[in-house]
Amino acid sequence: MRFARRGAAGAEKPVVVVDDTTYDLSPLTADIDGPFLESDFRARVTRAIESGSLPETSPGDERFGAPITRPSAIYCVGMNYAAHAAESGSEPPKNLVMFMKAPNTVVGPNDEVKIPRNSTKTDWEVELAIVIGKRASYLDGPEQSLEHIAGFTIANDLSEREWQIEISGGQWCKGKSGPGFSPLGPWLVTPDEVDASRLRLRSFVNGEPRQDSSTSDLIFDVPYIVWHLSQFLVLEPGDVIMTGTPEGVALSGRFPYLKAGDVVELDIEGLGSQRQVYA
Amino acid sequence: MRFARRGAAGAEKPVVVVDDTTYDLSPLTADIDGPFLESDFRARVTRAIESGSLPETSPGDERFGAPITRPSAIYCVGMNYAAHAAESGSEPPKNLVMFMKAPNTVVGPNDEVKIPRNSTKTDWEVELAIVIGKRASYLDGPEQSLEHIAGFTIANDLSEREWQIEISGGQWCKGKSGPGFSPLGPWLVTPDEVDASRLRLRSFVNGEPRQDSSTSDLIFDVPYIVWHLSQFLVLEPGDVIMTGTPEGVALSGRFPYLKAGDVVELDIEGLGSQRQVYA
Repeated sequence: MRFARRGAAGAEKPVVVVDDTTYDLSPLTADIDGPFLESDFRARVTRAIESGSLPETSPGDERFGAPITRPSAIYCVGMNYAAHAAESGSEPPKNLVMFMKAPNTVVGPNDEVKIPRNSTKTDWEVELAIVIGKRASYLDGPEQSLEHIAGFTIANDLSEREWQIEISGGQWCKGKSGPGFSPLGPWLVTPDEVDASRLRLRSFVNGEPRQDSSTSDLIFDVPYIVWHLSQFLVLEPGDVIMTGTPEGVALSGRFPYLKAGDVVELDIEGLGSQRQVYA
Repeated sequence: MRFARRGAAGAEKPVVVVDDTTYDLSPLTADIDGPFLESDFRARVTRAIESGSLPETSPGDERFGAPITRPSAIYCVGMNYAAHAAESGSEPPKNLVMFMKAPNTVVGPNDEVKIPRNSTKTDWEVELAIVIGKRASYLDGPEQSLEHIAGFTIANDLSEREWQIEISGGQWCKGKSGPGFSPLGPWLVTPDEVDASRLRLRSFVNGEPRQDSSTSDLIFDVPYIVWHLSQFLVLEPGDVIMTGTPEGVALSGRFPYLKAGDVVELDIEGLGSQRQVYA
């Protein structure tokens, strides 16, 4: 089961795809948000399709919005692939590293992204993103995490490296919250459809390969991340966790930073792909 | 003009105090949130009082909620008082240091705070908090900041120092978002009522003085903070910026960390006071 929000920015309509058929989700929910995700949404969708209450629809090439409404928080795991830690000049972390992005950075997966004013070091980061489906606080162990996950999607955790590292006093948040810095989507895919422990994830700039790795290389895996964060804060339905990026970003020094006219493409096995033109 | 939200958690009613009279704000707005704050709210309140459309009210000792609804983001300035940087083992920062807290940490100013499970280093931080009233993006200079500020309030930027510093890989967010970690209020005070550049701010634990400083000691002052952040991200109406804490916290080693039964009191000149019992 995969969900999307289709239509112009601010006017997206929720849809669900089951067995290659797209259904209009509007009779069941006005939007794909926290309250919907915590409402036993998979069973409700199945029942609604079986009872014929969801009309089929053909969104064609309509725009994809982010597959969920604006989250109440975006948590990000840093340095979660050993080779990326190395290219960033760091040892692999002993403890999970967490920072945050402003929720108003979320945009659609194929929306144009403006290089921020005065930025010279805008950098891409393909990441597997977790969408929380059920409040998570003090989980007993990683084996409890799955029932709190609504699904997975692709995130581009865009970063401005000068702001993140050089003029930040060491706290990364300043370089992570530029306008449009969190392209999300296209699909929210339920956990039964993908094995999140072994998904190939890649990025390309102007058609040239940049990142090419697998979530099997994550230092802290998906169940660990949700359990670990739940010991320190309360995860809410609709919240997003970006799980970290593999090696192959501009920060490594091996590739130039993004400039106007560049095209960034990201894909994750089973989750689809993103394509952004930079301006 | 000062605003508050009074009543049980989740059922607060908005009020405004003008010339020592408290008015029920419900006829004008259902809540004190971003849309209200960006709606030329001071002029609207003045007109409504003059026209007699706001009934007087006597909330008595009703609970204070946070004076605004949950913000879309909480930005925090770190190490913004030289003496606090020193007690934390750091030089005063050359560049403004910014980190974030999860918006679901906001609670009322006098609500009981639970020491988080497995915490041994829960620490207080009295801070002047800015509430944004108008979208701020790429301000031309600090002199433009004031028109984007709805008002000021008191924040206790609670922190768990082990999670913030020892098991964080250097990113502070993990130790800043515990449940109830952002007591806010009691009042949202409009900028015409206080001179934010010289407000005494203090904290006490079990009646003993801890912090006692003035916002005149801020390394980066209020206009600078709003202007600076607007160069890197978009501030939205209702967002909160905690401006940093002065010396006198437990992290210094001079005082014990908080434990169940402790009482923390915070006050800022012109903004009122908070009192939390820890459990």
